Amino acid sequence: MRYSQLIGRTQKEAPKDEVSNNARLLTRAGYIHKEMAGVYAFLPLGFRVLTKLIHIIREEMVAIGGQEVNLGSLQIPELWQKTGRWDDSVIDVWFKTHLHSGTEIGLATTHEEPLSQIMTQFISSYKDLPLYAFQFQLKFRNELRSKSGLLRTREFIMKDLYSFCKNEKELDEFYEKALHAYHRIFERAGIGKSTYLTFASGGAFSKYSHEFQTVCDAGEDTVYLNETKKIAINKEVYNAEVLNELGMAKDDFKECKAIEVGNIFKLGTKYSIPLNLYYSDSEGNKQPVVMGSYGIGPGRLLATIVETHHDENGIIWPKNLAPHKIHLIGLNLEDENTKKRVAFIYEKFETSGFDVLFDDREDITAGQKFADADLIGIPFRVTVSKRTGDKLELKLRNSETTELMDLDTLTSKMVLEHV
Amino acid sequence: MRYSQLIGRTQKEAPKDEVSNNARLLTRAGYIHKEMAGVYAFLPLGFRVLTKLIHIIREEMVAIGGQEVNLGSLQIPELWQKTGRWDDSVIDVWFKTHLHSGTEIGLATTHEEPLSQIMTQFISSYKDLPLYAFQFQLKFRNELRSKSGLLRTREFIMKDLYSFCKNEKELDEFYEKALHAYHRIFERAGIGKSTYLTFASGGAFSKYSHEFQTVCDAGEDTVYLNETKKIAINKEVYNAEVLNELGMAKDDFKECKAIEVGNIFKLGTKYSIPLNLYYSDSEGNKQPVVMGSYGIGPGRLLATIVETHHDENGIIWPKNLAPHKIHLIGLNLEDENTKKRVAFIYEKFETSGFDVLFDDREDITAGQKFADADLIGIPFRVTVSKRTGDKLELKLRNSETTELMDLDTLTSKMVLEHV
Repeated sequence: MRYSQLIGRTQKEAPKDEVSNNARLLTRAGYIHKEMAGVYAFLPLGFRVLTKLIHIIREEMVAIGGQEVNLGSLQIPELWQKTGRWDDSVIDVWFKTHLHSGTEIGLATTHEEPLSQIMTQFISSYKDLPLYAFQFQLKFRNELRSKSGLLRTREFIMKDLYSFCKNEKELDEFYEKALHAYHRIFERAGIGKSTYLTFASGGAFSKYSHEFQTVCDAGEDTVYLNETKKIAINKEVYNAEVLNELGMAKDDFKECKAIEVGNIFKLGTKYSIPLNLYYSDSEGNKQPVVMGSYGIGPGRLLATIVETHHDENGIIWPKNLAPHKIHLIGLNLEDENTKKRVAFIYEKFETSGFDVLFDDREDITAGQKFADADLIGIPFRVTVSKRTGDKLELKLRNSETTELMDLDTLTSKMVLEHV
Repeated sequence: MRYSQLIGRTQKEAPKDEVSNNARLLTRAGYIHKEMAGVYAFLPLGFRVLTKLIHIIREEMVAIGGQEVNLGSLQIPELWQKTGRWDDSVIDVWFKTHLHSGTEIGLATTHEEPLSQIMTQFISSYKDLPLYAFQFQLKFRNELRSKSGLLRTREFIMKDLYSFCKNEKELDEFYEKALHAYHRIFERAGIGKSTYLTFASGGAFSKYSHEFQTVCDAGEDTVYLNETKKIAINKEVYNAEVLNELGMAKDDFKECKAIEVGNIFKLGTKYSIPLNLYYSDSEGNKQPVVMGSYGIGPGRLLATIVETHHDENGIIWPKNLAPHKIHLIGLNLEDENTKKRVAFIYEKFETSGFDVLFDDREDITAGQKFADADLIGIPFRVTVSKRTGDKLELKLRNSETTELMDLDTLTSKMVLEHV
């Protein structure tokens, strides 16, 4: 991609009303554009990173048996009235609207009710279970405040998986699998080390739910952390009882801020009973399906990576998530030979399968191009100029040193780096 | 995929309120589930086909220089007031809702306004143009009636590309490219032969827009068709003037019903002027950006394929769009040897990279399995039973004959078929 043709150039200043690091950096670097408070457009660079995250999450969900579906955003009241969740006092982030007929409908904040309803059609016997359905679908939440950039928005893509099991044992087994899949996702997203399995409040069915909390000052949540055991406790359930159950003491934990990047929840029969989702067991007895839900917002995950992977100059993407693999900078483009050489290198990279962002701008200083590269945060910066002669200058985004090498050496190095 | 574990089994009867062939067949075959009038969930089979269509469209949009973005669904009134499109009397399919603050917002029916607004930030000079942005994003339309299944829904994914050019000449050149890309898309979607470039009403900027109309009795549009020249005229502009311009006569056209599967539109400066989207030309003069828009709804496209590719027994998918490549049927599964053999064949196909739907159900008759295979419409049906011995029985969905062959012969045949 030639930078001169890219939709989404860098900006010197972030909009004044953006206070979060993720929104400031992603806006300045040309990844996103704020359309209103809590609603962001993904520009090409941002959409590329989002797509890579979605791909990772999808792979892990398919690996544990998830089947991908896609439900509607528009919701009829009847289903939510059955579970008592239509009322704005129960779900206070509903957006509601009307059909021309006057019928009130809602914009999905979550999908337990409609999916359970669909499953009543396909689940009747114990032979039909277990089943796991997931989707990447828009959620709408009428948040009172949206000041944290992509961390809390009024509209966002969410991966939500729902498990449908015969009994608690089957649920427990899948829950454990999902938990490991979540760890793999955060590992692959570059936040494995800073993300903790966290005890959080449960519900009627289970004492606790589990959140995945990434330690970060920008987080809205307060958690108590034990680094040795790699677990945390959400402030909401941080009490003598939970400490006692874990066989640990207050001194074992330190308080810190964290971002909830995922949560998994044993729903039990909370939705299956009111929505009439039953099956016949092997003895022919009618039993309610035992459910679980498992959520990750790829947009919030992207923002969390930016919050934990940046310096004063810009974003520092993990190699597998960067929008492009190589940021190629051409300098001294007024010199015909240099211009030809960098165009040749660009072609060479592209035909070798390296995905390149090529800063081909002619009216921009070297300093500005390097600053933009730091802001955008692609791992490998390659410079071609009069000075580099028949070599290329390589600089890693997370290092200060530069290195001159020929094209073949660089190509081999990139291949070895699994780029 | 084992059919016994698939979310979305076949149903004997379609819901009584479904009158369209696409909704009846797709529901009965387990591709979709109606959530409310005009809102459908895609089940795993349906989602797979939708994904393949999206992939084709994305490839063709990237090939003509499109950059993928993703805008918000929630819309602020200000932008639409500038172009005069906020009023329900102008766009009569708006869904509108409110923030907690009381501010009225809308659900996107289309995205000219917000994208033009975004582009004001990135377009200032003639050097920035042309640019082409596209997305696959939800559109919401408060349709009065939704009786045509996936052909007209209240919520749907739409691919919308917008072109931003310096002048009419540049727009015309891109418009021509987009037109050819659209032909390729419909060709790859298996409806190339029945889809006609159609003259439709234009606007202030151009006399005509172009629709792509697929001839089909289920269509809501009436068009006048010339098969030799492969063009059509929408009823709305079928008059002496257009016939005269085309140098053709009334007798050259025959009336038929058609489904609008795509449209391309020269917008000119209709949105750029009110939204202040200008650039400086090479002489430093301020000029309005000249726009075009190019839409395809993958869900409607899917429905159109079903409407034009089915018989009385079910769907007949084009090979490249079927949810799975092979429908493998195991019969006589009470016989341990046959059960082992079909499981072996299933493994063999999967490890060879053939994507298989394996009907492994033990309590279903052969007749029912064959009927389900016809309904689901996967091109290659392979049966393993006691009777087939060490051979496999192959039947194509669009043929009546069956053929016995060994696994290697079948595999080679599939490879040759580019499956």
